[in-house]
Amino acid sequence: MRIALDALGTDRAPAPEVAGALRSVEADRELRVVLVGDATVACEHPRVEVVHAGERITMDDHPAQVVRGKPRSSMHVAMELVARGDADAFVSAGNSGAVLALAATRLKLPGSVKVRPAVVTVLPTPAGPLVLCDAGANVEPKATAIAQFGALGAAYDRAVHGRERPRVGLLANGREPGKGTALTREAHALLAARAAAGGFEFVGYVEGSDLFRGVVDVVATDGFTGNVVLKTCEGIAEGMFGLVRQELERTPLVRLGAALVAPALRGVAKKIDYTEVGGALLAGVARPVVLAHGRSDDVAIASAIRAAATFVARDLAGQLAATFT
Amino acid sequence: MRIALDALGTDRAPAPEVAGALRSVEADRELRVVLVGDATVACEHPRVEVVHAGERITMDDHPAQVVRGKPRSSMHVAMELVARGDADAFVSAGNSGAVLALAATRLKLPGSVKVRPAVVTVLPTPAGPLVLCDAGANVEPKATAIAQFGALGAAYDRAVHGRERPRVGLLANGREPGKGTALTREAHALLAARAAAGGFEFVGYVEGSDLFRGVVDVVATDGFTGNVVLKTCEGIAEGMFGLVRQELERTPLVRLGAALVAPALRGVAKKIDYTEVGGALLAGVARPVVLAHGRSDDVAIASAIRAAATFVARDLAGQLAATFT
Repeated sequence: MRIALDALGTDRAPAPEVAGALRSVEADRELRVVLVGDATVACEHPRVEVVHAGERITMDDHPAQVVRGKPRSSMHVAMELVARGDADAFVSAGNSGAVLALAATRLKLPGSVKVRPAVVTVLPTPAGPLVLCDAGANVEPKATAIAQFGALGAAYDRAVHGRERPRVGLLANGREPGKGTALTREAHALLAARAAAGGFEFVGYVEGSDLFRGVVDVVATDGFTGNVVLKTCEGIAEGMFGLVRQELERTPLVRLGAALVAPALRGVAKKIDYTEVGGALLAGVARPVVLAHGRSDDVAIASAIRAAATFVARDLAGQLAATFT
Repeated sequence: MRIALDALGTDRAPAPEVAGALRSVEADRELRVVLVGDATVACEHPRVEVVHAGERITMDDHPAQVVRGKPRSSMHVAMELVARGDADAFVSAGNSGAVLALAATRLKLPGSVKVRPAVVTVLPTPAGPLVLCDAGANVEPKATAIAQFGALGAAYDRAVHGRERPRVGLLANGREPGKGTALTREAHALLAARAAAGGFEFVGYVEGSDLFRGVVDVVATDGFTGNVVLKTCEGIAEGMFGLVRQELERTPLVRLGAALVAPALRGVAKKIDYTEVGGALLAGVARPVVLAHGRSDDVAIASAIRAAATFVARDLAGQLAATFT
């Protein structure tokens, strides 16, 4: 199996990408990584291949322009490898809007299948993994697209977490059916109608607080709200751990206690650590496309590569596409 | 000073309301509370007055119907006391949509002032209190209303937290000005134009993760997104503390450590405890209206009453209204 990795994606590229690629091939003897980057990229491992690409897509590049412009960028060249079948999946920590736009044109699903590609991400919660879709691709989707996001999330949950009949909720400002906007009320009706055939249970509206209570496996929402929720969770988790660290430094006695509970707290941190999850999946395209965080270190990049490899092994892209045929 | 308290609001009403009223008058010798409720409501304190109202607004009552229906409900009668000037502020833990609809008609700002009432809430963050507006009143507002929410939030922040020139951000799915929806881009332009005259600094778009990094004092958003963010924060805070508690019970050594760090962790919990904050304010009406959580206990109710008293003492309603004249 070969994973194409855009080596110029992270804020400190290409160091995390090169180290992450090495880390992942060392952990999995079946894995090959194609590192696509400029002249600064070098790696001596027999299962890491380096492909050179002179240009770099930055955060300032507008997604729509990226599709036609900068054809020699690392992102274009890596995506091309996947489109041609020379690699099985694509991983990048770069401009996610640009990845999206490129993947939507280069890795389009064949034939009659009409799907709006959407970002699927997994939120670690005390009750287990929660699938969120769309986490940012479609900022102003129609109700039919939001209903699709629920079905995509359910297919992902079934394939990745093995839950036979995922419980899907629609994110809103209250649980009563009268809540929400005109858009969410329309999506509510569509999801209710689609549930039986889609092999999931539709539990109706869920609130922000329901995300952490284990009452749903999948949350469907538009990409604007999904992105805000995802980043709010990341921010609050970081903020709270910062606060805990501060407080546990205060007195010698507290520091002693802190040393005793440190492994337990690390366990908690690990359970809700976003870098462990390994990046978001762009669902609704022909091959697995994994979006890693711009701040990713080598561990996070290796985790994104591992996620991509798992998706390939389970033919996730095919399973998600089948939802719509 | 007299606060009108709807005694039939919480899930376990009227017990938390009666105990909360007592708690608040005992803490503040200047305070009087008018407890409005049915025959089960009784209180013997000289500064707690009981007014009887036969009906109760439930969570199933539709806000629009509440305005005309159930005129003998505790919510109506308590609101009427405030409208007539027999009480200075209103507190309820009941159906917030109903409170909103009632307040919008009974406590309308006089004359030419055109404001859409909005919910202002304070999120505790490691970097200090963060003002969020709108937290749920206007699910599908226009861009002009969202810009008003920023100005309302800034006026609140100035009056309550004493920040002279609050930094206002507009919530979106990214920091670049090209992000967001058509609605947020219009609101972005309006807020930028309004900042100088409004006495606040507009920092542009902020992401969910920025809420906890101390880069803004006020976040403006529509009531749908605001409500989702607020409840997500509540949910994740609860979920994480549940997880920490679980992990700290595992082994005798960890339990010993946990005992030593318990006061420090309680300090953290207090810093981000939503019941301590004391309810949300309905801004843009003639008198302070405080919305408490349906799950409030007596401490949370007392805290909401204290918040209402502070708002009255600082003439917050007047200051917020002045923003628009």
